[in-house]
Amino acid sequence: MSKPFPYVNPKLPVIWHGGDYNPDQWLDRPEILDEDFRLFPLAGVNVVSIGIFSWARLEPEDGRYDFGWLDALMDRLGGAGMKAVLATPSGSKPAWMSAKYPEILRCSPDRVRDLHGNRHNHCYTSPVYRRKIAEMNTRLAERYKSHPALLLWHVSNEYGGECHCPLCQEAFRSWLKKRYVDLDALNRAWWTDFWSHRYTAWAQVESPSPRGEGSLHGLALDWRRFVDAQSLDFFLAESAPLRSISPEIPVAVNMMEVYTGLNYWNWAPHVDVIAWDSYPRWHRPDTSDADTASRVAFIHDLFRSLKGGKPWLLMESTPSQVNWQPINRLKKPGMHRLSSLQAVAHGSDSVMYFQWRKGRGGVEKFHGAVVDHVGHENTRVFREVAELGRELKGLADVAGTSVRARAAVLYDWENRWAIDEFMGFGKAERDYERACVEFHRALWRLSIPCDVPDQERELGRYELVAAPWLYMIKPGTAERLERFVAAGGTLVLTFFSGMVDQSDLCFEGGFPGPLRKLAGVWTEELDPLWEGQSNRALPAAGQDLGLSGEYRIDGFCELVHPEGSEVLAVYGDDWYAGRPVLTRHGYGKGRVYYLAAKVDQRFTDDLMGALAKELGLASAWPERLPPGVNAQARGDGETDYVFLMNFTEKEAAGLPPFGCRIERKPARH
Amino acid sequence: MSKPFPYVNPKLPVIWHGGDYNPDQWLDRPEILDEDFRLFPLAGVNVVSIGIFSWARLEPEDGRYDFGWLDALMDRLGGAGMKAVLATPSGSKPAWMSAKYPEILRCSPDRVRDLHGNRHNHCYTSPVYRRKIAEMNTRLAERYKSHPALLLWHVSNEYGGECHCPLCQEAFRSWLKKRYVDLDALNRAWWTDFWSHRYTAWAQVESPSPRGEGSLHGLALDWRRFVDAQSLDFFLAESAPLRSISPEIPVAVNMMEVYTGLNYWNWAPHVDVIAWDSYPRWHRPDTSDADTASRVAFIHDLFRSLKGGKPWLLMESTPSQVNWQPINRLKKPGMHRLSSLQAVAHGSDSVMYFQWRKGRGGVEKFHGAVVDHVGHENTRVFREVAELGRELKGLADVAGTSVRARAAVLYDWENRWAIDEFMGFGKAERDYERACVEFHRALWRLSIPCDVPDQERELGRYELVAAPWLYMIKPGTAERLERFVAAGGTLVLTFFSGMVDQSDLCFEGGFPGPLRKLAGVWTEELDPLWEGQSNRALPAAGQDLGLSGEYRIDGFCELVHPEGSEVLAVYGDDWYAGRPVLTRHGYGKGRVYYLAAKVDQRFTDDLMGALAKELGLASAWPERLPPGVNAQARGDGETDYVFLMNFTEKEAAGLPPFGCRIERKPARH
Amino acid sequence: MSKPFPYVNPKLPVIWHGGDYNPDQWLDRPEILDEDFRLFPLAGVNVVSIGIFSWARLEPEDGRYDFGWLDALMDRLGGAGMKAVLATPSGSKPAWMSAKYPEILRCSPDRVRDLHGNRHNHCYTSPVYRRKIAEMNTRLAERYKSHPALLLWHVSNEYGGECHCPLCQEAFRSWLKKRYVDLDALNRAWWTDFWSHRYTAWAQVESPSPRGEGSLHGLALDWRRFVDAQSLDFFLAESAPLRSISPEIPVAVNMMEVYTGLNYWNWAPHVDVIAWDSYPRWHRPDTSDADTASRVAFIHDLFRSLKGGKPWLLMESTPSQVNWQPINRLKKPGMHRLSSLQAVAHGSDSVMYFQWRKGRGGVEKFHGAVVDHVGHENTRVFREVAELGRELKGLADVAGTSVRARAAVLYDWENRWAIDEFMGFGKAERDYERACVEFHRALWRLSIPCDVPDQERELGRYELVAAPWLYMIKPGTAERLERFVAAGGTLVLTFFSGMVDQSDLCFEGGFPGPLRKLAGVWTEELDPLWEGQSNRALPAAGQDLGLSGEYRIDGFCELVHPEGSEVLAVYGDDWYAGRPVLTRHGYGKGRVYYLAAKVDQRFTDDLMGALAKELGLASAWPERLPPGVNAQARGDGETDYVFLMNFTEKEAAGLPPFGCRIERKPARH
Repeated sequence: MSKPFPYVNPKLPVIWHGGDYNPDQWLDRPEILDEDFRLFPLAGVNVVSIGIFSWARLEPEDGRYDFGWLDALMDRLGGAGMKAVLATPSGSKPAWMSAKYPEILRCSPDRVRDLHGNRHNHCYTSPVYRRKIAEMNTRLAERYKSHPALLLWHVSNEYGGECHCPLCQEAFRSWLKKRYVDLDALNRAWWTDFWSHRYTAWAQVESPSPRGEGSLHGLALDWRRFVDAQSLDFFLAESAPLRSISPEIPVAVNMMEVYTGLNYWNWAPHVDVIAWDSYPRWHRPDTSDADTASRVAFIHDLFRSLKGGKPWLLMESTPSQVNWQPINRLKKPGMHRLSSLQAVAHGSDSVMYFQWRKGRGGVEKFHGAVVDHVGHENTRVFREVAELGRELKGLADVAGTSVRARAAVLYDWENRWAIDEFMGFGKAERDYERACVEFHRALWRLSIPCDVPDQERELGRYELVAAPWLYMIKPGTAERLERFVAAGGTLVLTFFSGMVDQSDLCFEGGFPGPLRKLAGVWTEELDPLWEGQSNRALPAAGQDLGLSGEYRIDGFCELVHPEGSEVLAVYGDDWYAGRPVLTRHGYGKGRVYYLAAKVDQRFTDDLMGALAKELGLASAWPERLPPGVNAQARGDGETDYVFLMNFTEKEAAGLPPFGCRIERKPARH
Repeated sequence: MSKPFPYVNPKLPVIWHGGDYNPDQWLDRPEILDEDFRLFPLAGVNVVSIGIFSWARLEPEDGRYDFGWLDALMDRLGGAGMKAVLATPSGSKPAWMSAKYPEILRCSPDRVRDLHGNRHNHCYTSPVYRRKIAEMNTRLAERYKSHPALLLWHVSNEYGGECHCPLCQEAFRSWLKKRYVDLDALNRAWWTDFWSHRYTAWAQVESPSPRGEGSLHGLALDWRRFVDAQSLDFFLAESAPLRSISPEIPVAVNMMEVYTGLNYWNWAPHVDVIAWDSYPRWHRPDTSDADTASRVAFIHDLFRSLKGGKPWLLMESTPSQVNWQPINRLKKPGMHRLSSLQAVAHGSDSVMYFQWRKGRGGVEKFHGAVVDHVGHENTRVFREVAELGRELKGLADVAGTSVRARAAVLYDWENRWAIDEFMGFGKAERDYERACVEFHRALWRLSIPCDVPDQERELGRYELVAAPWLYMIKPGTAERLERFVAAGGTLVLTFFSGMVDQSDLCFEGGFPGPLRKLAGVWTEELDPLWEGQSNRALPAAGQDLGLSGEYRIDGFCELVHPEGSEVLAVYGDDWYAGRPVLTRHGYGKGRVYYLAAKVDQRFTDDLMGALAKELGLASAWPERLPPGVNAQARGDGETDYVFLMNFTEKEAAGLPPFGCRIERKPARH
Repeated sequence: MSKPFPYVNPKLPVIWHGGDYNPDQWLDRPEILDEDFRLFPLAGVNVVSIGIFSWARLEPEDGRYDFGWLDALMDRLGGAGMKAVLATPSGSKPAWMSAKYPEILRCSPDRVRDLHGNRHNHCYTSPVYRRKIAEMNTRLAERYKSHPALLLWHVSNEYGGECHCPLCQEAFRSWLKKRYVDLDALNRAWWTDFWSHRYTAWAQVESPSPRGEGSLHGLALDWRRFVDAQSLDFFLAESAPLRSISPEIPVAVNMMEVYTGLNYWNWAPHVDVIAWDSYPRWHRPDTSDADTASRVAFIHDLFRSLKGGKPWLLMESTPSQVNWQPINRLKKPGMHRLSSLQAVAHGSDSVMYFQWRKGRGGVEKFHGAVVDHVGHENTRVFREVAELGRELKGLADVAGTSVRARAAVLYDWENRWAIDEFMGFGKAERDYERACVEFHRALWRLSIPCDVPDQERELGRYELVAAPWLYMIKPGTAERLERFVAAGGTLVLTFFSGMVDQSDLCFEGGFPGPLRKLAGVWTEELDPLWEGQSNRALPAAGQDLGLSGEYRIDGFCELVHPEGSEVLAVYGDDWYAGRPVLTRHGYGKGRVYYLAAKVDQRFTDDLMGALAKELGLASAWPERLPPGVNAQARGDGETDYVFLMNFTEKEAAGLPPFGCRIERKPARH
């Protein structure tokens, strides 16, 4: 039976194991390099990411290049049977370049130009920077395109941030002209007649600024869209030489969690494989490790969804602690293996680290690494990495398999931008991501596989979709949701739905706007609660969902009027006691649930559990698992690889604390 | 019997009901306009405020004017028997103007010029902006001066903020030259010999800045005075064409709560009617609605006092929630009527809203409005507004009547500025406004009418005056207070009194400075307490005020020496246990109480209650009312209109939750 | 028997009593000056500090000087038998100078130049400012060098802060060139190959900035060193005329607590006497007065250590409250005498105040002073000052005596800079100063004298040294510590030790780096805990230190491997339960303790108490004193002056609340 997906690169048809490697720090210490090559096989490392921050070493002055050390490194890797993820160095510009071409430095929202320093902060519009990186990448591609060690292009590093320089202002206006063609359309979309904000010339338009415009939600939204589009355009420009010179080498960028600055759905078609850097905060006092695991699971599922289930790469993770969180705890014994295998369980074909060896200096010198400052292999961390390396070798057949989900929780970047920007109701409590994670968690607790699409995806492959807080409805979305339900799908909507269009303009004619017909409710008002205030959700008499007892409500209470829908739960308190909290509406062959209030996790669990049961959604594990234990399955149609994972510090389900067991089972069809 | 005050405008001799109306947002949607005119009468609206943010529509390019849409609107209003509060559009400058004349953009305290955006942020010194608005207002006045719908000029919108541009620096220096004439006088007033701050040329003087001068209290005070004076000067300049062209149309500005940036006492003589925008935060977990109501009552009384009791206008309020507070709760059923009638009870001749109809976009699209995005009248909010509209129609005879108070709590803007600026004792706890509200609250709880004058008013009309924290004593104030007491008045002073003159220079010879003789105490020291530390006030043996039990003290403890005064309460703890907390001093025919510590509300209630009883100050209601129920009375000398209001969520005094009853009674003489 | 140290100035061979005096504020009020000279003797004042902020009065315009008023003041002081601490006025520049020479204004880290204002903010590189102050100081020295009243040069005022102007950037680069000679050495020291930060020209180097470079720890460290060096260079430049013209007059600067911006060890050789300004926060709710006293004791001991035990000057303190802390409580009765005598007990030969008389205006008008705004001597504060003045007169024989300590707690400025800057583990909890204070406190509670050296001092004079958190080990330090222990010393080390060299480069080969051999442990990992998480330290069976019960651990847990050392306490919880918390290692004739976790104060007390007992370190008081009571002794080899001090609000050890008794005893040899 063939794999559902090809290998990322058939040169390495196993689970990749390795990490960022920065030997440019020790070019004057060849004995360190020797040690690294002694230690690589001990750790079971088969691939390293190199060149990520090497521009200053590769082009020490304008137009003078030095690839000697990189040639040697590539050859030595090849000679050792290892592979290289080779980066383009645009993530950090050399000091001489900032000095010679100040235009490559970003301007902040208050229009002050950066001085040189740090990283990830070049202007993505600057023609000079685009020219310099194209020249560099052309040389890299020419030089290494046929090198046997070359596995993947790692383009730049964690793209992000924004620039407000004059070049970017001009590019923004060009982007707007393309989007709106005539200025009047822009004025209408941004509703500029309010507060006399009407533009009469394109040149009057500028990016949002704490010193300037801060009260046009439409501008704020379009600025975020532009930043995403311009960053993507930079990526396309800098990867063009790679594509044309080495078309057979796959291209990736390393993404960052649910980074809000970029809409990764726009990037997915342009990369060959999704890769992301995962740094969960285990062992915190305010969140159980199980809840942390469920949040990570949500993000894993999101990244897997970006390319339709295709295996992805865990491009960075730490084998130990990190150095940039407020408190950076050690991973407890077992947690490194567990969290690495969790990624594989959700579809990763790699476990990779930042970084191989700790540097003596630099801002990340206390970031965990495989090789510590002590320099040898006799450390707890090295041993855990080495053991995992051995285990991954035995999981080679997992590579290329995928996850099949019949349920989904919708998370949408532009919707988040709009929610984060708009003014009203209550700002502090508006945590859209958390709302999505809580719906995902309800399924995770049942080990039911779940995808995380955005609102532009067709949903036909699913039977159950939760779309929390779908505040912004873009053209086509209502129709897609209607098609999904009409064909028999079950949809869960919540308060904060159907309020604005893609320009953040409120729908007329009653919320949830274009979803009103589908949801069978009209939302008249939304009452936000102060911290410390609460209400209760009470199951309606005769409801058939198995809701029981009282549920706590805080944060938000919508007041809705059922329009042909059935009431399943009601408010217990305040002047709207008795009014609907949960309704159900038949539509075509499917059903729509509308949840009017911010309920507690137990309510979400009970609701999603009842729907999953009703729809017969299968768990990855036959029996009900104890709290904190989760199962995930990948398969190739013939074999299912089931990962059973214990995210608690106690024995559970036959697993030790932080234990994980992998079982191979015949696939269920 | 004639009214004690004339109607604001005899064209509309009733309680005004209406609000901000921004149809310039829908010039391309005539059906919306038609709907508005269908809905106005249903809501009982008789007046709308228009043109507030219309500059971009009225002057779409420099010198080209378009009044067509406004002509049509005014005519349609007139045709419908409605009136217009017509605004001048200076509250928001058009984008083309910022682009063409950058001098109209403000500079921040760190001397960086704004980019274009937001609103309320033009330079009030800029000759260009003054010329542009004069040209605009001349046209508005010429065009509409005789229009039957024109009721009131609404000049600009919520003046506020400050500008530090070079033009303003120059204007500040001119203002200082007028105030001090010679530089040596300024040096003496600002005490520049401390820290070697002596100026030797006027050009060395600049406004305070986080980048520059931050340690001259005299400079900080004078800068605030200048900002007030220059803003007022701008208002006088922009209203001059209105005054000269349409002298019969009254002029108002909409003020903001206890906005600290302007001294509204300086503005009161220059407007024909006081108007303010009221947005209390009901239904909070940390403050009872009754306490919120009492704070609003304090502000209502302050605005009524600004023009000697003359009826004023509630210019803005929300029929529902707002969108700019941290959490924006809905008003519970009844609260809209109650809070609107509370304004009328305290002297308002209007109930007006921001705004009539929610815009689809813009920063305030989720701010409550009479007409919601749904567009029709079948909403809870519309119904409550419409019911209130009917009720207000029946209260037409209340218009023009006023409140007669025999008690007052003194609140003084310049005193507040000085308290906010000076460095010492403890900054976090220095909440002067709260101190005043607490004294006012003691009378509010007894439903005793109260005025809120500042220190420059004659007090002869009162019998009881509390002047908390009168830190700054301006020339004439001590004499006014002495006259008041000598003639038989009862005065309550507190710690933080009589410390500095109008330049924030400490009085020599012992605090409370010029009040020492009057108060009969010498204040030697002031001990501020940390949060969590407290003391107790114990009634002195034989005191005749009915003080009882122990009272809690926190925040501030002054150590005073009685000088001919009687001790009524003492400290219970610390090394100053037994020393005076409250003293009484006879002076002429009156008495002065001096309260040395920050006592709890119960102490303030007991003290003010005892004094009110002794002086026979009448309550607006014959019986003692339960907590949270308040009565206010307006009258014309013949009839008293008594508003009985329940600010609790329970039935009380025969009123439903948040209920209000209005009784007409023969006036007490 | 001669004194161990000479008098600061034999002109005043007693304990100095006086304070800052700013009569330049009242040049137009001669009666105030007369009053001051009436009050000085009543307060027992024998010296005043003058001219600190007098530049605007001494040089009212560029090149025009006016010393008339200062001549008169000096003569009047001399006539009254008083002495003058005469300041150079560089602490505050005149307004005319900023206007004429903008280069003297500092630039902030974001490279924005200050406007004129405040104080202590001139550029220390500016040639103009250096020239102007040299001209001024030459005149001051020439004029007053032989004046009988002149006692001490008080150079500038509380040097501090930093400037990022172009002149300072250039000076920084020159300083770096001197330090590193070739750029490659700098690149290696700052580890610039990480993140591609390599410099290829000196001109690319700039000071750290929020707008620019923020991720080079080596740069951050060197910038702090440069700021210290350049400030010192400014001091040397401005004091050069004083040194050459009046070589017999001692020179001092007033230092500030544990001010982190300057390394006072570099300054100590260049001043003739250490002087510091002490403003402890007594009577807080979160800290007992005893703990506050112990922190002050730590700082007193640090300043005494700076010049090897030489008596120092309490240059500023408040007789009452201050005005710049969040809450500024009054000193309770007795506390003024107690805290003043505490300084003397720790080696001060003065008690001086900021300030003599409160000014009517200025930012410090509510700062405590001897003479209050009331102007007369009949105040509590004046009386307490006067009584203390009488008492100090009787302590004249204490002047010149010193403290002999056999124990020390090491506190190191550069180590602190490195700890404050580096990124990792957990930032919020990294309070190095507190760690040192807690070790010092353990000895303070036993009234055992203690010095506070830094890591560059020889330790041969001590028997017990605690060196908490010695994260940075500079060249020579390990050898010094080894010598100390080998010769029989007892050393206490803790977690966070021996991690980096002077460039913040991590040691290879296992932490604690160069101390590994000495400590007998290898530190493999460091686990930081979140707030709310904790562990326990359990005494090992058979340990001989008298540890008992369980001790609480929070913040940091190191995992160490004993290498020839003995385990005295172990972790109680988590996966490292049973692993070492405290070890002991014999080395030469001495012993080294290594403490792997952040333990509670009781553990530190028990550990240090056991070691002190074992080493026979004598307490300044024969009997064990109750909590909050402390004894300190100064002596001249013949007589010991023992100060017994009660820092509690209750009677204890025969002392009243906040009481102090001084006993003269024969010296112990």
